[in-house]
Amino acid sequence: MIKSKICDMLGIRLPVIQGGMAWIADASLAAAVSNAGGLGLISSINAGTEAVREEIRKCRKMTDKPFGVNIMLQAPNAAEIAEMVVEEGVKILTTGAGSPAQYMEMWKAAGIVVMPVVASVALALKMQALGAAAVIAEGAESGGHVGEIHTMALIPQVVDAVDIPVVAAGGICDGRGAAAAFIFGAQAVQVGTRFIAAEECTVSQYYKDQILKATDISTIVTGKTLGHPVRSLKTVFSKTFAKMEADPSVKPEEILAYGTGALRKAVKEGDANGSFMAGECAGMVKKIEPAKAIVDDIIGGAEKILAQAPGLLA
Amino acid sequence: MIKSKICDMLGIRLPVIQGGMAWIADASLAAAVSNAGGLGLISSINAGTEAVREEIRKCRKMTDKPFGVNIMLQAPNAAEIAEMVVEEGVKILTTGAGSPAQYMEMWKAAGIVVMPVVASVALALKMQALGAAAVIAEGAESGGHVGEIHTMALIPQVVDAVDIPVVAAGGICDGRGAAAAFIFGAQAVQVGTRFIAAEECTVSQYYKDQILKATDISTIVTGKTLGHPVRSLKTVFSKTFAKMEADPSVKPEEILAYGTGALRKAVKEGDANGSFMAGECAGMVKKIEPAKAIVDDIIGGAEKILAQAPGLLA
Repeated sequence: MIKSKICDMLGIRLPVIQGGMAWIADASLAAAVSNAGGLGLISSINAGTEAVREEIRKCRKMTDKPFGVNIMLQAPNAAEIAEMVVEEGVKILTTGAGSPAQYMEMWKAAGIVVMPVVASVALALKMQALGAAAVIAEGAESGGHVGEIHTMALIPQVVDAVDIPVVAAGGICDGRGAAAAFIFGAQAVQVGTRFIAAEECTVSQYYKDQILKATDISTIVTGKTLGHPVRSLKTVFSKTFAKMEADPSVKPEEILAYGTGALRKAVKEGDANGSFMAGECAGMVKKIEPAKAIVDDIIGGAEKILAQAPGLLA
Repeated sequence: MIKSKICDMLGIRLPVIQGGMAWIADASLAAAVSNAGGLGLISSINAGTEAVREEIRKCRKMTDKPFGVNIMLQAPNAAEIAEMVVEEGVKILTTGAGSPAQYMEMWKAAGIVVMPVVASVALALKMQALGAAAVIAEGAESGGHVGEIHTMALIPQVVDAVDIPVVAAGGICDGRGAAAAFIFGAQAVQVGTRFIAAEECTVSQYYKDQILKATDISTIVTGKTLGHPVRSLKTVFSKTFAKMEADPSVKPEEILAYGTGALRKAVKEGDANGSFMAGECAGMVKKIEPAKAIVDDIIGGAEKILAQAPGLLA
């Protein structure tokens, strides 16, 4: 059985973390992944701070295993969320979209393990200096907000640069991707897109259907002109967004207004005009199944591949 | 020793192919890589068809091992090159930027092994149907012309889709990347950027210096608005190019004109205002060394990693 220092640190059995996807990662999904032996995460992007508090309490009723919260630091209520998770006794946090510097002292005093998501070596080193327990190095294959470079090049460079454990994310959704990540020196993998197709994931059926229908070239990155690149499925929404960005007569405020609420519409309402965030490996997601089957397939697959790897030397 | 069907097919000892980089991949580099046991490639993008013919003849004097030619199908002289390689008795071709359909019959009649570079599953299937001996699936981490998706997601999906051997390219420059590629099911790897730092590579010293100085986030993709995205180092040239693309008052013809000859200037003259094409793994290239040391490090490294992979199951 694959076992890593990070499993001991997080109190989990299998080195797979479910991405804290905005609007998507709720108590239902997080508890299912934690019950399966991985680490479930609840997103701080939901209908306000109190809604997230409710998800945390709900999750605690659904699992006695460790789970965490992903805090999107650029959200207007980030400071409020940062305090709420301490009040609720959350013990594991991942952070995205910015530096958690101002909260680190409070979180460490509360005994919280903090794992920031980083997209470059420089940011990984900064987070290590801040006292992060690990970094989640995320290649731009991932769905949602993306950085500049990709898993194949990012993970080895971050592993070479830092002393703390590295979790690999971006483009990983099966045993092959996980085995590659372990070979790069990562101690765990974070998987997002494939968990959207988990039975316990509460997104609209339409969202799940779009993931299952995706091919290798079904995603697009938009938002670069606004400074916030996001990967999602190619839909009327994302194509329109891209066209607006390319049109000099359209103001950034108009583009932002067009995008506001689009993810929520996709997740909650299955509105075809919503934003269906997904990673490049959406084309590899072929069925809806329990979170436990996904966790077992990823880690079991990686174990089998690594055990048989010397056989590739024929 | 890693050995694959593709080694037998190409008559090479080690499953590493040197990318046929425009202006860069000449007789000197190709012969060095072939002599080291890999497959050297000569680029068809040079000072005209006769110059490429000269490189082929020169390479044959420098090595008795197999080598090939990479044909850029969108080049104005592509048809001429396509016939010239037959005249010269070249036995291995890779093709890029388009479909080699119109030449396949002629090449197959000449007993040439054709391996098109593809950036999607659909194109891989098309090339298989055309009778390609293998496909080189190239993730957009690579330097030069890039597709949409990246190695981590692309290779497993292409491997799942086709029956012919798959060569993995994009973001691979050491044993870790090669081991990951073999785990994805690739039978060989194609490496570009690291070979720019080969002693036998004849690019300007300034170009080599820029590769050695690169970090993880030193590359940028430009040219998307022109329909020809290209990855290169962030320099005054590429940043200016990107600004011109973002400026609605600049016409596409002006941008094209600005880019014309920029790669040649970087390669041949070491002109700081040239275009220094490089992949995302430029940040992992740390020294100038003989091509043989690079080939041995990549394949020897992968062998060691794969042999020890079961130990990751602690």
